[in-house]
Amino acid sequence: MTDYRAPLEEIRFALETAGGLADWTSIPAFEEAGDDLVAAILEEAGKLAGGEIAPTNVPGDQIGAKWTEEGVISPDVFKPMHQAYVEGGWSTLSAKPELGGQGLPSTLSTAVDEMVTSANMAYSLLPMLTSGAIEAIDAHGTDEQRHLYLPKMITGEWSGAMNLTEPSAGSDVGALRAKASRQPDGSYLITGQKIFITWGDHDLADNVIHLVLARLPDAPAGTKGISMFLVPKVHVNADGSLGEPNDVKCVSIEHKLGIHASPTCVMSFGDNGNCVGYIVGEENRGMANMFTMMNHARISVGLEGVAIAERAYQHAASYALERVQSAAIGAKTRESVTIINHPDVRRMLLTMRATAEASRAIIYRNVWALDRAHALEDAEARAAAKGEADLLTPISKAYSTDIGVEAASLGIQVYGGMGFVEETGVAQYYRDARIAPIYEGTNGIQALDLVGRKLNADGGAHWRALIAEMRDFAAGEGSAYAGDLAPAVDALEDAANTLFENGFDKIVDTAAAATPYLRLFGTVLGAYMLSRQAVEAEKCLAAGEGNPSFLKAKVSTAAFYREQILPSAVALLPSIKAGARHITDMAEEAFLRH
Amino acid sequence: MTDYRAPLEEIRFALETAGGLADWTSIPAFEEAGDDLVAAILEEAGKLAGGEIAPTNVPGDQIGAKWTEEGVISPDVFKPMHQAYVEGGWSTLSAKPELGGQGLPSTLSTAVDEMVTSANMAYSLLPMLTSGAIEAIDAHGTDEQRHLYLPKMITGEWSGAMNLTEPSAGSDVGALRAKASRQPDGSYLITGQKIFITWGDHDLADNVIHLVLARLPDAPAGTKGISMFLVPKVHVNADGSLGEPNDVKCVSIEHKLGIHASPTCVMSFGDNGNCVGYIVGEENRGMANMFTMMNHARISVGLEGVAIAERAYQHAASYALERVQSAAIGAKTRESVTIINHPDVRRMLLTMRATAEASRAIIYRNVWALDRAHALEDAEARAAAKGEADLLTPISKAYSTDIGVEAASLGIQVYGGMGFVEETGVAQYYRDARIAPIYEGTNGIQALDLVGRKLNADGGAHWRALIAEMRDFAAGEGSAYAGDLAPAVDALEDAANTLFENGFDKIVDTAAAATPYLRLFGTVLGAYMLSRQAVEAEKCLAAGEGNPSFLKAKVSTAAFYREQILPSAVALLPSIKAGARHITDMAEEAFLRH
Repeated sequence: MTDYRAPLEEIRFALETAGGLADWTSIPAFEEAGDDLVAAILEEAGKLAGGEIAPTNVPGDQIGAKWTEEGVISPDVFKPMHQAYVEGGWSTLSAKPELGGQGLPSTLSTAVDEMVTSANMAYSLLPMLTSGAIEAIDAHGTDEQRHLYLPKMITGEWSGAMNLTEPSAGSDVGALRAKASRQPDGSYLITGQKIFITWGDHDLADNVIHLVLARLPDAPAGTKGISMFLVPKVHVNADGSLGEPNDVKCVSIEHKLGIHASPTCVMSFGDNGNCVGYIVGEENRGMANMFTMMNHARISVGLEGVAIAERAYQHAASYALERVQSAAIGAKTRESVTIINHPDVRRMLLTMRATAEASRAIIYRNVWALDRAHALEDAEARAAAKGEADLLTPISKAYSTDIGVEAASLGIQVYGGMGFVEETGVAQYYRDARIAPIYEGTNGIQALDLVGRKLNADGGAHWRALIAEMRDFAAGEGSAYAGDLAPAVDALEDAANTLFENGFDKIVDTAAAATPYLRLFGTVLGAYMLSRQAVEAEKCLAAGEGNPSFLKAKVSTAAFYREQILPSAVALLPSIKAGARHITDMAEEAFLRH
Repeated sequence: MTDYRAPLEEIRFALETAGGLADWTSIPAFEEAGDDLVAAILEEAGKLAGGEIAPTNVPGDQIGAKWTEEGVISPDVFKPMHQAYVEGGWSTLSAKPELGGQGLPSTLSTAVDEMVTSANMAYSLLPMLTSGAIEAIDAHGTDEQRHLYLPKMITGEWSGAMNLTEPSAGSDVGALRAKASRQPDGSYLITGQKIFITWGDHDLADNVIHLVLARLPDAPAGTKGISMFLVPKVHVNADGSLGEPNDVKCVSIEHKLGIHASPTCVMSFGDNGNCVGYIVGEENRGMANMFTMMNHARISVGLEGVAIAERAYQHAASYALERVQSAAIGAKTRESVTIINHPDVRRMLLTMRATAEASRAIIYRNVWALDRAHALEDAEARAAAKGEADLLTPISKAYSTDIGVEAASLGIQVYGGMGFVEETGVAQYYRDARIAPIYEGTNGIQALDLVGRKLNADGGAHWRALIAEMRDFAAGEGSAYAGDLAPAVDALEDAANTLFENGFDKIVDTAAAATPYLRLFGTVLGAYMLSRQAVEAEKCLAAGEGNPSFLKAKVSTAAFYREQILPSAVALLPSIKAGARHITDMAEEAFLRH
């Protein structure tokens, strides 16, 4: 029931067609990332994910994380699995070589992360949050901080946690109240409570390095008065050895719908007045510093959508190939057949598969843009890549996590009554998937980012470039698909222009249209990315290269997506252009029932 | 947190505009159903649902049904609530007077059932399944059976359970293997196991009257060899008193995603060779007899979608009116506001509200057609009503339960991180709602019913009549909305004609298009029903009648639905017309990953 097979053929193809795989070695920073190494890494990661991690998913859900006075306890089955992950060096792939990392492209580590996440989403959050903390400390910490904390975080011996949210400061981070006061030795005393702290405490690592957002006594109000502090669970001596415990405590964990094995902690800092933290970056720059790592974190959450859709798809497909029920539609015999023969079951499976593959391509492209934004030598090319990465990030996050929930729901439907029984394991995906549209900026916040910052960045240059690229494709290599793609790209451009021209005067109209605009953008981009893959697949088929079964499926899946998924998204255009009137006109009190 | 307020204003309006309320007393069978009685029943039902039943929903979920060797135990909080339900006569509303019922329209009892289901979906299945069993016994049982079993089932002192499914016989009921053998006294000995038996055993009633589908030794294969048996948990003496226990046992219950308080039983019949059953109707007619009650059962499940969407909506709306976070978009001050001021939150709430109201109107109309099909005096009018009821049933079931899941998911999103924490109660709706698209015929089966039996019934007369009605409205009273409605009706007609003309030659194309066709049909019908309500609301506003806040909200909600929900459904037309090619062409083995 817990079988997960890393979709290596598909991941490899997505890396080639969307993740820039062929160009990796042409960038000096990635010259090690040659074919043999990449193939070996993907293969071994697949074995780890399918063989070691996937079997822990159900027990992790059933046992869950347990709070105790002495700290949070992980399910026993997690310990050998985490040890294998750390000892295999899996968290070091894209980290910097000078800190013990392997310096490989993030695009490659994203592919590995996807497999780990499909295998056990709750567990995957531990290395994911640690990566985020590493990135922030690396970008903004002192050299001393970098060398004291990062090597052991990079190996995975220590983990990281991000402490942002408070009960009154969720989407509005600027409303937070945790306090920091300066001490004579340059350190700070931290006090306050944080909620929803993923893997805020646990027993899989010897130390947890917290990044905590807090306010200095003289800080300005709002986001401009937030500073970032490094707060170790256990103090680290100058020689790297562990010292005394810090005044940090997990006071409770949440009872959640899903990801039961991922402890969601209420963290209390400074209950005994002795929580020592160290500033990361400058005072009052915490929010801006947090933004530098936001792309990666958001893409990682988007990846959860792909990963859960992929696993739900595999689970449903294997059931559909086994379960025998009813005769085939229109068949001459009344003999019962496997349910994959029923067109409506195929529709569900293809919807899961096509949206997972579209999102995967979008995300790989997004991370590759981020890799280029960091590693390219030419500043202008770096800026263009950064612009693209920024534009794609809210789409990667929100579109992928929405389809993750939809795919998990379809996975239950394919299973019928058995899907509603927890024993089959598919209900867990539906529960686990539901968090991804919420955390790391709700999908509503992503949509506002897309129609705000991202629409207007560099005068709209980045979305215009992407639209031009799609149009070129539809007019050139992809002309066989132009009948579907060209009007879809027109609709996207029309929507983008409308919202762009709204400006500040019609900002409420723009905000009201943000969610359908993001859905339109994600779906059109998905159709384009799959169509590009279909062109590549056709080329391989014509050249007699590769596995024809997989390549033909690529062509079919793209056709299904254009035909069955794209039109409803394109039809969002009039809703997007309609303005906010019918959204804002209902009186507040009328929302309550009598 | 568990607050549910019966939406009496909306339910009353839906009964008036979609449920034929003004016509009830014109039908002799319903002449009692006058204004005062109806108003009193709705009011009291609202109190029961909000005051007594709703508070049991969370404890019911947390405690769940418990299996013991002696039988299944319900949560303690259910006992006084069920007693209040039985003593209030709530299950007798639409039952026949000669058996102790009140003979009121099913449309009225549907409104009451909706409130009970919103209040506690898991509990609501007990009276719902009992109603189904009553209907089957009443229609096909002997007079002796009717008088021996029905009065106590109607009061709710005894419950009913439907035993159809077996491990290899789910959607394909005809594959079932339970056996019945004739005994000299005219009774039958039953053997076999049934799964997924909702409320198959429990401690809220003194007896459970099982209807069991089984096969006689000489029965033909498939659905034509199925007979229906009445199998009491406890034998009933001729005087109505309880006798010896029958050889019926619940051997286990399922651990499910949701509706934890509703025991989903594996029932074993005849383990000791002594399970006595009584045939209901003729031998080998069990399947056909089951169909006579299928409309009601399916509509009742559709009602679960409405009920859960309504409760999720109320919960989310009240949170959105309280929760303060972030400044309003475009506001001059940076003061934080309640999140109902954010357009994207309103979009979510309005989507939940509008789809719940559209589904409610469809379902009330459907039940009213069923009422007329039973109670009208003119045979031709009865046949027309029956045709409409049959046509609408798969839409009531599938469209409503799909939007139930979608609304529950949005309800979590409105809550943000708190929605993922079980404590707030909104995650329960997401878990509970997920069963409704599955049981009582999966939504895929409903869609096949719509494009098969229902599309072709009476040469297509019923859908043609409904399309003509919608077209008349758009050209007449609803002409203000014709810009949205007329093209939507055109699309529906085009889709219906295409599938109708496919015939048997293109039956696979039709089957492949079934699900989007049902979604298109449900959404267009929803837009029409809400638009009719908007016309009525405008009339009341112009006449200065009614509550202007509610009436204006009706107009807004309909406008929102036409503008923001309808276009994507209309855009399903090309997908529906595309045929099955891109759904059937992928090779089976290509569905597996490598």
